[in-house]
Amino acid sequence: MSLFDSLFQPQRIVLIGASADERRTTSRPQRFLQKHGFPGEILPVNPGRAEVFGVKAYKDIDSVPGAIDHAYILLNGKDAVAALAACGRRDVRVASILAGGFADAGAAGASLQDELVRIVKETGIRLVGPNSIGTVSSDPPVALTANAAFAVDRLRAGNWGLVSQSGSLIGALLSRADARGIGFSRLISVGNEVDLAVGEIADLLVDDPKTKAILLFMETLRDGERLAHAARRAHAAGKPVVAYKLGRSDIGQELAKSHTGAIAGSDATFDAFCRRHGIARVSMFESLIDVPALLVDRPPATGRRVAVATTTGGGAAMVVDNMAMAGLDIAGPPQALVDWLKPLGIAAGEGKLVDLTLAGAKPEIVSGTIERLLADDANDAAIFVVGSSAQFNPELAVEPLLRFAGSSKPFAVALTPAAEKSLALLTAAGVPAFRHPESCAEAMALCLLRPTPQPVPALVEPSAAASEALRFGRERGFDERCAAALFATLGVPMAASVAVPDARKVASAVETVGAPVALKILSADIAHKTEAGGVALGLTDGQHAAVAAREIEKRVRAHAPAAKLDGFLVQKMERGLAEVILGFRRDPLVGPTVTIGLGGVLAEIYKDASTRLAPVDETEALQMIAEVKGLATIRGYRNLPRGDEAALARAIAAFSALAHPAFAAVAEAEINPLLVKRDGEGVVAVDGLVVLGR
Amino acid sequence: MSLFDSLFQPQRIVLIGASADERRTTSRPQRFLQKHGFPGEILPVNPGRAEVFGVKAYKDIDSVPGAIDHAYILLNGKDAVAALAACGRRDVRVASILAGGFADAGAAGASLQDELVRIVKETGIRLVGPNSIGTVSSDPPVALTANAAFAVDRLRAGNWGLVSQSGSLIGALLSRADARGIGFSRLISVGNEVDLAVGEIADLLVDDPKTKAILLFMETLRDGERLAHAARRAHAAGKPVVAYKLGRSDIGQELAKSHTGAIAGSDATFDAFCRRHGIARVSMFESLIDVPALLVDRPPATGRRVAVATTTGGGAAMVVDNMAMAGLDIAGPPQALVDWLKPLGIAAGEGKLVDLTLAGAKPEIVSGTIERLLADDANDAAIFVVGSSAQFNPELAVEPLLRFAGSSKPFAVALTPAAEKSLALLTAAGVPAFRHPESCAEAMALCLLRPTPQPVPALVEPSAAASEALRFGRERGFDERCAAALFATLGVPMAASVAVPDARKVASAVETVGAPVALKILSADIAHKTEAGGVALGLTDGQHAAVAAREIEKRVRAHAPAAKLDGFLVQKMERGLAEVILGFRRDPLVGPTVTIGLGGVLAEIYKDASTRLAPVDETEALQMIAEVKGLATIRGYRNLPRGDEAALARAIAAFSALAHPAFAAVAEAEINPLLVKRDGEGVVAVDGLVVLGR
Repeated sequence: MSLFDSLFQPQRIVLIGASADERRTTSRPQRFLQKHGFPGEILPVNPGRAEVFGVKAYKDIDSVPGAIDHAYILLNGKDAVAALAACGRRDVRVASILAGGFADAGAAGASLQDELVRIVKETGIRLVGPNSIGTVSSDPPVALTANAAFAVDRLRAGNWGLVSQSGSLIGALLSRADARGIGFSRLISVGNEVDLAVGEIADLLVDDPKTKAILLFMETLRDGERLAHAARRAHAAGKPVVAYKLGRSDIGQELAKSHTGAIAGSDATFDAFCRRHGIARVSMFESLIDVPALLVDRPPATGRRVAVATTTGGGAAMVVDNMAMAGLDIAGPPQALVDWLKPLGIAAGEGKLVDLTLAGAKPEIVSGTIERLLADDANDAAIFVVGSSAQFNPELAVEPLLRFAGSSKPFAVALTPAAEKSLALLTAAGVPAFRHPESCAEAMALCLLRPTPQPVPALVEPSAAASEALRFGRERGFDERCAAALFATLGVPMAASVAVPDARKVASAVETVGAPVALKILSADIAHKTEAGGVALGLTDGQHAAVAAREIEKRVRAHAPAAKLDGFLVQKMERGLAEVILGFRRDPLVGPTVTIGLGGVLAEIYKDASTRLAPVDETEALQMIAEVKGLATIRGYRNLPRGDEAALARAIAAFSALAHPAFAAVAEAEINPLLVKRDGEGVVAVDGLVVLGR
Repeated sequence: MSLFDSLFQPQRIVLIGASADERRTTSRPQRFLQKHGFPGEILPVNPGRAEVFGVKAYKDIDSVPGAIDHAYILLNGKDAVAALAACGRRDVRVASILAGGFADAGAAGASLQDELVRIVKETGIRLVGPNSIGTVSSDPPVALTANAAFAVDRLRAGNWGLVSQSGSLIGALLSRADARGIGFSRLISVGNEVDLAVGEIADLLVDDPKTKAILLFMETLRDGERLAHAARRAHAAGKPVVAYKLGRSDIGQELAKSHTGAIAGSDATFDAFCRRHGIARVSMFESLIDVPALLVDRPPATGRRVAVATTTGGGAAMVVDNMAMAGLDIAGPPQALVDWLKPLGIAAGEGKLVDLTLAGAKPEIVSGTIERLLADDANDAAIFVVGSSAQFNPELAVEPLLRFAGSSKPFAVALTPAAEKSLALLTAAGVPAFRHPESCAEAMALCLLRPTPQPVPALVEPSAAASEALRFGRERGFDERCAAALFATLGVPMAASVAVPDARKVASAVETVGAPVALKILSADIAHKTEAGGVALGLTDGQHAAVAAREIEKRVRAHAPAAKLDGFLVQKMERGLAEVILGFRRDPLVGPTVTIGLGGVLAEIYKDASTRLAPVDETEALQMIAEVKGLATIRGYRNLPRGDEAALARAIAAFSALAHPAFAAVAEAEINPLLVKRDGEGVVAVDGLVVLGR
């Protein structure tokens, strides 16, 4: 039996530790399987009983005859570990473990979890959990779960597949979706993801004919590459991947080690991950079940103009307000619609809303309006907002909408009152329908603005020079010079500089790099050069520079008498229209990332930065530049001179080549500042650092 | 009969234009009054019928015998105007008009509306609308409305009073609240607010013993002063005023005439209004009915620390994530609770969440946990997040929460699944309960962080010098010098400057103000001095300045040969740690406002500003300074030197005195830049402008 079938369509299920006491959680999987009509064979294992809920029980797993597709282990701690080992010996295809108390519970639990890892490796059994509240399919029904929500009378079939890192939330989403008339194809709680994780499950669901959308409730990300692969395949198959992820409030806190980290934060890197791979990330919990209907079988659109018609001016204004905040434009009605409505006594065309109000809540007017809006080339999508009539008179303004299910252009309905009957009608007919103006706007924004999966730029093989610069830096420790040398080999233009052993060589170095220059003391013993008096700026000629060098030497010796001094760095002083910070780091969840932000204190305060998975190509780098608000200053804002965006994009792309595994030793890198000159004059990096991994 | 009673508890209601045809909207008021058991007398007026729905009908209003408390006019256009006039003659206390088509519908409608204004003035009748879908009370029941939502079987009684500028949304909110087990005391649609507007109605509700919270759905603000007054009285009475207002997406668009407007935008001014007067503004529609329970009879707290316990880790994490984004802190469990839970097998205290999970969903553990959290001084509020058990087993983790209704500390419950029964239980018991993590977080943030009404600073009588500066500027037109003179009389420190008639006097003027100086051409004919070559900066002595003056003269004459030149302004060059923009404007909705933002292109791009109603005192000005993120640069960020915040606050307060009616001619004013010097060294304004009203 395939992995997919063993997970979602098993024929023979063993329940290890099944309880016959209804009050116990461990009785639930069998009760729920039976209640929802599991068509296969249930094989309870319980050493103390001959039967459980009318089904013959076995004293241990070895006594169970025949092949076992899926074993749900309902024991705790060491007993669970032993049961998994027994399942491994028995060639059980897939096991799930209910209990927590593993890596989720400190050091003792972590070592128990290591046991599970070992058994998985040694026996080849596939494991869901530990800490998995179950795996459910609706058709044929397999309610293999201990989640109390599955006490529901009827397990509604549907087309959304849910993968959740929180067990309790599969129940919450089941009940919320059910109340909306929405069912799931599959629901799975992946727990601690010792083996099977979100990405691999999502990948299986891409090939599941019963699943049309893949929903993810995430607390972390453990198999990013696999999920990326799944998301791309899902996109190609017309199946949206919609994710809600916790941790939005932690921006820049835990991972704020370097400037870059502080600006970008870990939540921004997950956003970058979603963007790269075409995952629609939602911000409202309810959106997780509200949004998919609008995305299924629909590639992201090319425009952002939404036409809005309504029977409630106030209700529609709420939707419009939220859509505008989400970055959508509102398209006014086409002349054809205005002309058609006029003889019906409805004045449209003054504002952008088509307000049919009282007079217009008639089926033929509603459907005639939508028809004309959907036919108009001046919008990319349409929304109808229904007022009070939706509650008691769905025949007026809701039923006429049903025939627009499957329209070639995105079409959604927002209901202003609580109108469960209308909601159910629309949902059953396949018309995306929303209860909240906020989630309606979020869905439409995702429908029109979410990016398709972006091409992953090829990793550039490091040049011999780059490899040599890395080797040198790893041996000697990465000081400013080594970092600059590495960045230069990647193709980032660096300010001209010459290192000299003492003050006497400074003047001739100025000849080489060209005045004006900056002078910096070189010493591995001095971390903060400026504080030590080790820097002089704006030196206009060799003579001034030589004098300054001797003064620096004096100051530094006074400040740090024991420091070994290695001479001076003579660097050409550069000017630009804007100072940019370029950051690289290997994120623990999503891997290599590159961040660009505006330099300076203010940009740091405003956390104005753009992050992408690394590497990026020049096209993506240009998108990043466009996302940094403060770089408006080089994009022609208020007639300021334009900066060399193309050269900046080239530098970002070159720098992001650090993502290559050959540079795995580089944990973080930063260029600060990178000066952007006038359009056509390029960029130049003045300072940078490289942080090696532990 | 009082205005309140005529509106909400009328005994004798006339329905002018009542239809006997059930399909017509104009039949609804009578049907709904009857359906919900209106205990008074209904008097339909219909010239074509002897009775309507079994009630004797009158041919016109003059035929109706006896006193009339409230007339609902169901006619359109001119007929509605005539009916209002007739009501006025008949001494009807209050009339409402259903029809739209007045100021909401262009010029023709506006002149009809003027007729209504005239009748109100002449007869003293009080008017609701036009464009009012009705006025409703639940106890005793008065469903005087044409809103289809009132076809509901039972009009639920309750304690929230709703005032809405959108008629259709009173139906939407009725149905949404009803589905939640929440009822209203009063609901009123105020329509075009020709006479009775939101503020006056809210003021009436403050004294209504049946109303404990006042909810506002707003599209605009017409009687701001009255609403301010009502909100303050409501606060004193322990009745929260909760407002949802449209127009959040229009920031800085319509009203972006000056820099200040562009930065602050009209939505920021409404926020300023809410803050000044203690109105809780919500951002989610659903919050309008979700939030009040947590605010009733509860002044804003002094701290922002919320303790969270749960039976669902994932669900609680969502609430925490949203709370943190809303500016709340999470408080960990007290030791007493950790110690109490330990022997029960529940490990708390490692993280900030108290996660009872499976083991702890027992009534005595849940209630023991809440008890100990509420007793802890280290938090300011507590939340319990209930998981799947809420759906089918409210006895486990929901029923034990009921006894915490009315706790002295704010206590709320968030439900992760759709669990209508539990929601109803909690709501009926008076425990604030939430279905969405987002609205739960919004409610708790409003509960703990919303400001109490702020004292309105006294208007300072303008000095004789200020009045003279205003008079002079109004006569001559406000150029830079006149504006500076006015600001100086208000008490804003201005950079020293001297105006001289020609280049020969420049050198001696430099002696007077002190070098270095800036030199600016004076001419009413030159709008953009810099572009005209009319400015020179950083002139170090009188001689340089005199030379520069002649060069300026040459450049300007070449640039604008016809301009009349009035000499030069010689101004002392000033330096500061930060440049601030100070803006004043009379907002069409909320009146005078003052805005402070950081100067420079970046701050403009980031729209980093703080707006308040003017005038402000120094305390409030300090709060404004604290709200401008970019001013972190003068608050000690990264060890940068501190700026003179006290002097800045004094300047803001002084500038905001423009709010005095004596300055009514000043539509807008701006100081840009105001330089903030080191702590103790003050501030100084370098440039400014005054824009007079039309």
